[in-house]
Amino acid sequence: MSETFEQMWSSVAPVGRSGSSGGYFRQPFTSAERECHEWFVEQCTARGLTIERDGNGNTVGWWEPVVDRNLPRVLTGSHLDSVLDGGAYDGPLGIVSAFAAMDLLVERGFEPGRTIGIAAFAEEEGSRFSIACLGSRLAVGAVSPERAVALTDRDGVRLDDAMAAAGLEPQLGRSAWLDSVGCYLELHVEQGRDLVHREIPVGLASMIWPHGRYRFDFTGAANHAGATSMADRRDPMLTYAMTALAANKQARLVAGDAGRATFGRLEVSPNATNAVPDRVTGWLDARCESDEALVELVAAIEKQGRERAERDGTTLAVTAESVSPAVHFDLELSARLAHLGGTDRPAIATAAGHDAGVLATSGIPSAMLFVRNPTGVSHSPAEYADLADCLAGVEVLADALAELAR
Amino acid sequence: MSETFEQMWSSVAPVGRSGSSGGYFRQPFTSAERECHEWFVEQCTARGLTIERDGNGNTVGWWEPVVDRNLPRVLTGSHLDSVLDGGAYDGPLGIVSAFAAMDLLVERGFEPGRTIGIAAFAEEEGSRFSIACLGSRLAVGAVSPERAVALTDRDGVRLDDAMAAAGLEPQLGRSAWLDSVGCYLELHVEQGRDLVHREIPVGLASMIWPHGRYRFDFTGAANHAGATSMADRRDPMLTYAMTALAANKQARLVAGDAGRATFGRLEVSPNATNAVPDRVTGWLDARCESDEALVELVAAIEKQGRERAERDGTTLAVTAESVSPAVHFDLELSARLAHLGGTDRPAIATAAGHDAGVLATSGIPSAMLFVRNPTGVSHSPAEYADLADCLAGVEVLADALAELAR
Repeated sequence: MSETFEQMWSSVAPVGRSGSSGGYFRQPFTSAERECHEWFVEQCTARGLTIERDGNGNTVGWWEPVVDRNLPRVLTGSHLDSVLDGGAYDGPLGIVSAFAAMDLLVERGFEPGRTIGIAAFAEEEGSRFSIACLGSRLAVGAVSPERAVALTDRDGVRLDDAMAAAGLEPQLGRSAWLDSVGCYLELHVEQGRDLVHREIPVGLASMIWPHGRYRFDFTGAANHAGATSMADRRDPMLTYAMTALAANKQARLVAGDAGRATFGRLEVSPNATNAVPDRVTGWLDARCESDEALVELVAAIEKQGRERAERDGTTLAVTAESVSPAVHFDLELSARLAHLGGTDRPAIATAAGHDAGVLATSGIPSAMLFVRNPTGVSHSPAEYADLADCLAGVEVLADALAELAR
Repeated sequence: MSETFEQMWSSVAPVGRSGSSGGYFRQPFTSAERECHEWFVEQCTARGLTIERDGNGNTVGWWEPVVDRNLPRVLTGSHLDSVLDGGAYDGPLGIVSAFAAMDLLVERGFEPGRTIGIAAFAEEEGSRFSIACLGSRLAVGAVSPERAVALTDRDGVRLDDAMAAAGLEPQLGRSAWLDSVGCYLELHVEQGRDLVHREIPVGLASMIWPHGRYRFDFTGAANHAGATSMADRRDPMLTYAMTALAANKQARLVAGDAGRATFGRLEVSPNATNAVPDRVTGWLDARCESDEALVELVAAIEKQGRERAERDGTTLAVTAESVSPAVHFDLELSARLAHLGGTDRPAIATAAGHDAGVLATSGIPSAMLFVRNPTGVSHSPAEYADLADCLAGVEVLADALAELAR
């Protein structure tokens, strides 16, 4: 007898949770995240799934009763890593729901016509190695092994060294098991309040907004914070501050409610109270409804930064670290899922990136299910979903898997 | 035969210097700073000075030829620690010049009437434990051992543990050797361009501006940088950015050229590219010509921060971590030094704190000599003084010590 949804949720909930904030610290290849992966393998084993690992840190459990193994497989799943001080639901909800949906299918006596897999992708958040969906990007070949192997975390630890230190055998590059996958369906907590406004517990995703990460390097001249007159300074902190305000303003003005611009990560050098900094590096996270609007938004922010740099006697260099174009989920697949159980499910756009977007871009027909989030808060200890909505999500996911694997 | 000024300068110059920036990393009780202290002890030993250490990390070398040891002693010196990525001159110039001035006095056949000491004070910059002039403040009793022992560096290492790890025997509190000191004279590189404008290589200090360090804690709500609409955010980064711009503006507008306000140190939580931060902490370094002006400047900055916080849905808490009132150097002592060598030396105000200010405040008559700095740049690898000006400083320091110890 497998654990229920609630039991699974309770068993994974304490792993990597901060006692002070209640948030999660499950960075990839740390002990907390690896403990989640061990839990994942235990759940697979308890259900008799065939476990397959690739060299990118991703793990899949296959449910292979008497089926034609040559038929394209149905894949569901999500990820187990978190942002720093993140929430409990972003990622794990998709995995726990997948196990619970599989149990529900067994309970219903459903006999799958094709293999169903549950995947746990690595480093979805990009919180350690800066590239979001790194595990799935490596698996589909969207990031080259050469680029990935050169990635380092904040402490200078390389990706492959971090993996080896976690007891894995890194072998970065395309994952052969993906070749057998015919479609992918990811269930995820909603990261906004669209479903709250619609008063519906479970919806479908229509598209993922284009999304870019841009490094803004502001350079000035270090100096004594007391002895240097205000007029004699070339202070990059001022240029940064004006640019951060410009990002907020441009996202509201240029893009309306269809744009986001955030400076959430900073590095200051030398970062001393009594020294005017010589360098401030800020990372801009920008997203828009269309690829054109994203280009326009970033250009507007950069322009205001450059204008201020001229006044401050500083310089600004902008580097696009990653840019993901718009992802439109598979129309045929979504149409098959839109009316399951006799309910019309709305398809909503999301500004958040997901492994489903990476798989969709690589050519695997993909879709997503969202579970209602009362406050819309995500990437924070306050992230939440009602148990009733989670169980409704499990029902829809089970119906969907039955439809796809019949 | 002791080393010349240039030889001493060359021997200490490589210690703790960054190969990439050329700046210095001599944080207190690190191996680089301890190497500087070993070098200091070697120089004392080479001159037959009596070495005395206190439990606060300060070291003194006493020159005690045939003198009446009951007469108040004459102290000179400075410090060997640096800010992060700091310059070569801030601190070490005073120490190297003190040894060179002593050598000059010996060469001149000067016979001191009282003991002359050279002090190397610990943690003058406050770069590791956040309180500037910590070594001298502990020595005069201006900071209690109870407060000091609770100080931790960025990695959470306590002051006494850092000292013990450096091989010292911490015994924080008043230093008995200071009771024997009748006056203190510190030579320092100028951290502005007053002497450049006056075309004079060496000047005197008149006063130190009042100076405060204030922690600004901006608190909002962590959230997803993509999924959260701009209108739904409570982003403390925006409040911080506006406050940093306000600090610059208020220092220029309210205080004219007689005020400084700098945000040079920041901590962001969780500091992730794809998360709206929940907390931004910035440290304001503020200085003004008068105590009243300083209070007014900080209040004006705080007011603008609070107004913005209200608009952003964030909160701002301001904590004064240290506030040092104006220090006026000893008028009688300065008068004795103002016309040495037949030259009129101007007395200039400085906005930078010094151990001489701490000793002056504690009641020890103190004075300072400044050596011209061509660019005025300090706390940066670009900090510089011409050799000819440094040697002129040594001459004036020797004349001054001869006057005070005659």
